[in-house]
Amino acid sequence: MAERIRIKDIAERAGVSVGTVDRVLHDRPNVSKPAREKVEQALKEMNYQPNMYASALAYNKAYTFCLLIPKHESEAYWEEIEEGARKCEDQRRDFHIDLEIRFYERSNEDSFKAVSQEIVDAKPEGVIIVPSSLEVTRGFTDQLHQKGIPFILLDSYMPDLRPLSFYGQDSFCSGYFAAKMLMMLAGNEKEVMLMRQTKDGHVVSKQQDNREVGFRHYMHDHFPQIVINVLDLPLNGTRNEYQKMMAQYFDEHPATHHCITMTSKAHLVGDYLLKSNRRDVQIMGYDMVGKNAKCLREGSISFLIAQHAYMQGYYCVDTLFRAIVLKKKVNPVNYMPIELLMKENIDFYRRTQI
Amino acid sequence: MAERIRIKDIAERAGVSVGTVDRVLHDRPNVSKPAREKVEQALKEMNYQPNMYASALAYNKAYTFCLLIPKHESEAYWEEIEEGARKCEDQRRDFHIDLEIRFYERSNEDSFKAVSQEIVDAKPEGVIIVPSSLEVTRGFTDQLHQKGIPFILLDSYMPDLRPLSFYGQDSFCSGYFAAKMLMMLAGNEKEVMLMRQTKDGHVVSKQQDNREVGFRHYMHDHFPQIVINVLDLPLNGTRNEYQKMMAQYFDEHPATHHCITMTSKAHLVGDYLLKSNRRDVQIMGYDMVGKNAKCLREGSISFLIAQHAYMQGYYCVDTLFRAIVLKKKVNPVNYMPIELLMKENIDFYRRTQI
Repeated sequence: MAERIRIKDIAERAGVSVGTVDRVLHDRPNVSKPAREKVEQALKEMNYQPNMYASALAYNKAYTFCLLIPKHESEAYWEEIEEGARKCEDQRRDFHIDLEIRFYERSNEDSFKAVSQEIVDAKPEGVIIVPSSLEVTRGFTDQLHQKGIPFILLDSYMPDLRPLSFYGQDSFCSGYFAAKMLMMLAGNEKEVMLMRQTKDGHVVSKQQDNREVGFRHYMHDHFPQIVINVLDLPLNGTRNEYQKMMAQYFDEHPATHHCITMTSKAHLVGDYLLKSNRRDVQIMGYDMVGKNAKCLREGSISFLIAQHAYMQGYYCVDTLFRAIVLKKKVNPVNYMPIELLMKENIDFYRRTQI
Repeated sequence: MAERIRIKDIAERAGVSVGTVDRVLHDRPNVSKPAREKVEQALKEMNYQPNMYASALAYNKAYTFCLLIPKHESEAYWEEIEEGARKCEDQRRDFHIDLEIRFYERSNEDSFKAVSQEIVDAKPEGVIIVPSSLEVTRGFTDQLHQKGIPFILLDSYMPDLRPLSFYGQDSFCSGYFAAKMLMMLAGNEKEVMLMRQTKDGHVVSKQQDNREVGFRHYMHDHFPQIVINVLDLPLNGTRNEYQKMMAQYFDEHPATHHCITMTSKAHLVGDYLLKSNRRDVQIMGYDMVGKNAKCLREGSISFLIAQHAYMQGYYCVDTLFRAIVLKKKVNPVNYMPIELLMKENIDFYRRTQI
């Protein structure tokens, strides 16, 4: 272990007072340029590593971070993100981190604009954003840049907006990987079903859209003969409506034995299959939410791709903490693992990694 | 955020001096029983959460942790563990953590005994052990218990030894999972090859042994008709000897198109196949070491199971840190994820998770 370097030793080496060293270390005024240079030279020669934790604690400042996230039901992917973010806030309690979570309606740009304006007005020390469309999000991040407030993008990567950092999965590669796994089961089939959730016929989530592109890319290259039947369930539909639509689909497509969805709602299909006693369909879906995990354990879902939502929430807050409070460098782009879960390894999935 | 509670406020509420509160908080002597009770009551009523970081930093004590690990070549699984452990030591530098890594010869119990005795004599604050056999390891851990030195087991779980904590993969489940994945490729085959590394005909690693049990369990239940041909490569053999043995195996078994190994040496088979230009064999192996990753990217290995060696090393040191320095409760049993890697998701494997 490196020996501890005392302020006194630095002052001696630099030939200045202890107070001067202290002012340089904490970047405070009233130090002459030659004195500052002497201290910096001494720090370099002594390979001084500041004790960031001690400095941050001594500074005794409070920090507010905002997390802007879509409104959601419970047991959803976004809830996992919230929980991870809250956990990090709690673990960093000693440093007076205050996390405010604010919600917008996913398919409503005005809602994003209104809530993001509230955040700008509140002048937080840092922001985490699940983006809306590029242009609407830019309206928000331009203001943050102007005010010098660092922000992290969560879920969708938009390098144009120059975020401090990004956390999320590479959706294209994830969909490509999903296709390869599904085809290990379905390579000899004539057709597969792709279940989507849409509003006015469109997939609202950019992530889900990109996964579908990756999926179709793999299918086009390796299994062009397999037909992809799309079943669109409306985003605001009832469980009853979904059941009817699925019943109709499977009545009309008795040759479908494999279903994939880029949403976190694979359990909708899983439950339907269980209830209608159809045992000849295998499902692949996304996200380790409770209902999906249950279906995986019971066998109605064969594969899930996890994307560590909890850890994404945790890392985003921790990254703001390390950048803003500890003044450390942080990684600009952080792709999450593409992790395959089946009945045989789900019990070892580490939700928290901590 | 909870408001900060000052020592002064606690003293006021308890009706004692600031010095008394300080002595109670830091568990120092010279406090009367009634005064201690008054302070504890006040802490409870005020829901006081001690600032563990600040306390640890103020205490300004140095800690030595020992990591006892098998001797190994570079690019091996154990090297990953070392690097993760060193990383954590570095990240906790502010708390004066000193990590000493010591090595023993894996297949030599006397070596384990000698090095572990050195560790006992050095009186470290905490120990991390990659176990030898149960009885030999017990000889070491009994002494640690006697001296009140907490220890963590890494790699092999031996609950009898009552460790502070355990980090590693569930080997049986991991081998079972590996079999299921391999059979997605090889379900229609007549035979598969199981490559092992042995000393005097025995698998030295308990982990590898248990994986094989899990693997055979799945095969017995689901594919009893598939023959498992074992190829044992001696642990201290040369690359040349290995090449010859593999050439002989594949000449004698032209119907083998799938190979699995529970070792981290899948790349030995991968390299052989590449060089001998055999394109009709798929390999499944363990551990994200550099040579395996290269084979996976080039296509000579189809599947790898990762077990996050780097993070195991990191977590072990961090767990000692949190238990001993921060005096926090830690999880007693920590199974690592069973993570499947293929060409399509290897680039998103997070070695560090930090």
